Amino acid sequence: MDKAKIIELKETILENNDADAEVLRQELKNKKICLINLMSSPGSGKTSTLLALKQYFDNHIKWGVMEADIDSDVDANTLIDAGIPSIQLHTGGMCHLDADMTRQGLRAFDRDDLDLVVLENIGNLVCPAEFDTGASVNMTILSVPEGDDKPAKYPLIYQVSDILVINKIDTLPVFDFDKSKVEQYARVENPDIKIFYISAKTGEGVEELAEYLVEKTLQYTDSE
Amino acid sequence: MDKAKIIELKETILENNDADAEVLRQELKNKKICLINLMSSPGSGKTSTLLALKQYFDNHIKWGVMEADIDSDVDANTLIDAGIPSIQLHTGGMCHLDADMTRQGLRAFDRDDLDLVVLENIGNLVCPAEFDTGASVNMTILSVPEGDDKPAKYPLIYQVSDILVINKIDTLPVFDFDKSKVEQYARVENPDIKIFYISAKTGEGVEELAEYLVEKTLQYTDSE
Repeated sequence: MDKAKIIELKETILENNDADAEVLRQELKNKKICLINLMSSPGSGKTSTLLALKQYFDNHIKWGVMEADIDSDVDANTLIDAGIPSIQLHTGGMCHLDADMTRQGLRAFDRDDLDLVVLENIGNLVCPAEFDTGASVNMTILSVPEGDDKPAKYPLIYQVSDILVINKIDTLPVFDFDKSKVEQYARVENPDIKIFYISAKTGEGVEELAEYLVEKTLQYTDSE
Repeated sequence: MDKAKIIELKETILENNDADAEVLRQELKNKKICLINLMSSPGSGKTSTLLALKQYFDNHIKWGVMEADIDSDVDANTLIDAGIPSIQLHTGGMCHLDADMTRQGLRAFDRDDLDLVVLENIGNLVCPAEFDTGASVNMTILSVPEGDDKPAKYPLIYQVSDILVINKIDTLPVFDFDKSKVEQYARVENPDIKIFYISAKTGEGVEELAEYLVEKTLQYTDSE
């Protein structure tokens, strides 16, 4: 299989990331590309969720992935092996991506024909939440083994997320994880957050999430 | 039960954290206090590991915990309820602690009678690895559900850690986690890293870890 193209991102010099993110969001709107910023702790299942979504996405939209990592190209190659167009972004130790780094990635990816680009952010619940990437949708994954109290401990990422995906629900019998508690904690931070329960491993709940994301993408790409 | 004292940390003005960390390490050595900097992803089980270590620690050493969180005081109160002297440090959104913030915490804790202080760092595999806290021992927890590839993706934290604790081994049958792979990945980053396998939930392996940490502490407190 082809190896993923690796882009070494440059640290941003721009001072006003929020303004730059708005500019990028408008640029992407003009190109009719929906950008999802996918965030989570390390090991919550960002890559495996994308693999699980593939069969549903492929029937409806053209999509690709920008995999951000500090180092390594494991994830992008996994996606390429599965037939998902992907590039690997290296942050060189940086703990998050901002709008300009996202733009560097999009330029290198050079796939303006796509309806949807997913930016898989660095596995981290703190720093990525602080930087608007210019994405149209922020989506955070929380996996059952991490515990139902995470929204109380890392509030900002839940405040800025449109969608919360609770992954690894096949392990609910093994862990002390209370669905009503996690929903309550999450809605304290963000009453409008949309919550999905999935198991990327067994496929449970993935179709419903996929349908929602396809609809979001099509709204975006159909917009005037 | 008493509520944990909450300390709002001030952002550091000092430029040279590495030098400041060395100064703090020497200060602690003079006071015969061993400081362990405990790091991991969110939800790997830092607090539950400390609860599991309690019965072993209590027989041999005087110890306490500084719980660092962005927000919330859940963890410090959990420890206090279990009878472990603890204070809660709030970083005000900061993703890590440095040496000066650690010193602020130690001053507020004001427990120079302790043999061991554990600093429970912010749940994050990226930023805490970059800042020397002045600790004598760096210990990182990786839990089985996060996956065996984490040392390849977040190399720095494994490079700076003396001890790697693999937690939640009771869930090994549920997850695709290869012990030889995680050891191989970890030792590429740090050939000398000491690896322990535990389940804070069932208690498996905890005694061996406790014995090692008690020995480390006593070496430190007995030093000239």
